[in-house]
Amino acid sequence: MIKKGIWLAYETTKEQMDRIKQLAPNYELIKGWDKKEELDFPLENIEIIYGWKGQRSKELLANQKNDLKWIQGQAAGVDFLDLEGLKKKNVVLTNGSGIHSIPIAESVFGMLLTYTRGIQEAIRNQQKSTWNQTESLIELHGKTIMIVGTGKIGKEIGRMAKAFNMKTIGINSTGHPVDYMDEMYDQKELIRQVSKADIVVNILPLTKKTSRFFDDELFDSFKYKTLFLNVGRGPSVDVPSLIRALNNGKVAFAGLDVFEQEPLEKDSPLWVRDDVLITPHISGIAEGFKKRLFVLFEENLKAYMQNKLLPVNVVDYEKKY
Amino acid sequence: MIKKGIWLAYETTKEQMDRIKQLAPNYELIKGWDKKEELDFPLENIEIIYGWKGQRSKELLANQKNDLKWIQGQAAGVDFLDLEGLKKKNVVLTNGSGIHSIPIAESVFGMLLTYTRGIQEAIRNQQKSTWNQTESLIELHGKTIMIVGTGKIGKEIGRMAKAFNMKTIGINSTGHPVDYMDEMYDQKELIRQVSKADIVVNILPLTKKTSRFFDDELFDSFKYKTLFLNVGRGPSVDVPSLIRALNNGKVAFAGLDVFEQEPLEKDSPLWVRDDVLITPHISGIAEGFKKRLFVLFEENLKAYMQNKLLPVNVVDYEKKY
Repeated sequence: MIKKGIWLAYETTKEQMDRIKQLAPNYELIKGWDKKEELDFPLENIEIIYGWKGQRSKELLANQKNDLKWIQGQAAGVDFLDLEGLKKKNVVLTNGSGIHSIPIAESVFGMLLTYTRGIQEAIRNQQKSTWNQTESLIELHGKTIMIVGTGKIGKEIGRMAKAFNMKTIGINSTGHPVDYMDEMYDQKELIRQVSKADIVVNILPLTKKTSRFFDDELFDSFKYKTLFLNVGRGPSVDVPSLIRALNNGKVAFAGLDVFEQEPLEKDSPLWVRDDVLITPHISGIAEGFKKRLFVLFEENLKAYMQNKLLPVNVVDYEKKY
Repeated sequence: MIKKGIWLAYETTKEQMDRIKQLAPNYELIKGWDKKEELDFPLENIEIIYGWKGQRSKELLANQKNDLKWIQGQAAGVDFLDLEGLKKKNVVLTNGSGIHSIPIAESVFGMLLTYTRGIQEAIRNQQKSTWNQTESLIELHGKTIMIVGTGKIGKEIGRMAKAFNMKTIGINSTGHPVDYMDEMYDQKELIRQVSKADIVVNILPLTKKTSRFFDDELFDSFKYKTLFLNVGRGPSVDVPSLIRALNNGKVAFAGLDVFEQEPLEKDSPLWVRDDVLITPHISGIAEGFKKRLFVLFEENLKAYMQNKLLPVNVVDYEKKY
């Protein structure tokens, strides 16, 4: 009889493999990064997927006869998966929420400081061996940051913002209080509160509600010269509206890590703008990422083998996060 | 009789002028930014200089017959002044130390995060409309930073570093304890401790002792792939030694805001290196700088007019800071 399988998308260490075998002795481990092994093992017998990596993961999921019961994803966002299909099949989905909080928060402050401290301009000038001093740089100290989405990442951004002596305004679905936020509002209130902010950071997950969330009406409500960052999901921002806001001065600078189409189209008007910083969806890249993801997987696997509810980061298919 | 004069290098507001007149009713105020006024008033009658701005300040100081008693400088570093000459004439010198702590600390983290979060590379790629994801970015979280020079700026860098959950090692002349520093050593100990650091930040003032302080011997003691920043003074770093350290891997990245010759020479080999970030001596540019400098001047002026010792930022001519 063919055993049930755990498909490992991420290269795992020998110690990690041993630990999985210990917790799940009756399962076969398939090295998803090894093309040969993947082909040898019948895909329909795979019950657990650890990690998610490009095309091969998609093929695996598309296999209609599979016995899939649980996917441990590595990202925080899960909008790229067929959530309806997974729900129908009763597949449990857990995400990598939490692993990316620190790197994304560090990237957010890197993107902001790159602009506020004249570093973006200095890097461009360095390309031309040009020394060009500016007289007007700004400080984050004393500014107000609005954090749209106050999950683990938003909270870490809030913690850092307080260390920079900033004022923090958080936005979440119900306006319930969150650590490190001086003020909290629900999403409906956002448009009335946004003009208080010098900086607006989007980290909303992608749902129907958040698609084109940042549109003309919302940008029009910004204070002039707002700094805007998107490290959430590309489709949350309507790009023509953003460009309009950059042109009419509502947004002085946009730092964008995520885009509707990735890689960003070669002919996107965003590339050539000096008031835009484009990073190629890298803000969540974590040091020691595989180690941290494994810790999370291990905790869930332990419960799974005991037929308990998975304790960490189970995705709610209704909320889509 | 011609009154004594206060020469204002920085454009001051009407409110600030009124406040000076209130504190120093028997003094003439000379608008140093107004060429005509400067010429009308006899330079030798100037007793106080507020601020320091380029060539005109130098001419003023060079006037041998002047009655100068006090200079309120705006920078933290004073090495560009003729300290020996000022000491001989018994001129009191106060500096702008403290005003620049927050902007410099923000610039330091901006320069670091620009590198660690892949933003420097992304900005270069954006110039070519190129999307190029990297797999390996690092986090400041958990790293060890060595702060060489623990005055007001160093302390603010230490405070921020703790917020980033870093370990902090401070270096000052005697090794005395300083807030936010997990460990402290004196300058002699530096060479034995430096290999503990992932990041080394220089903010030493320029003195005889600190000229060419970062030389072959010191860089050789670094751990491999150290990130090195200089926001102190240019001559503290021997550039050929730094280039050698970049080439042999001791330094993975150098962020430089200060240089021996400024602007940096067009043919400096530093411009074209991808592992170097050059900012044009802007890290200290503070928002609301004139307002903050005035607060400091006002406090000293109050004491001066009562013939008291100046309370804020008096430079020690022996230490040169």
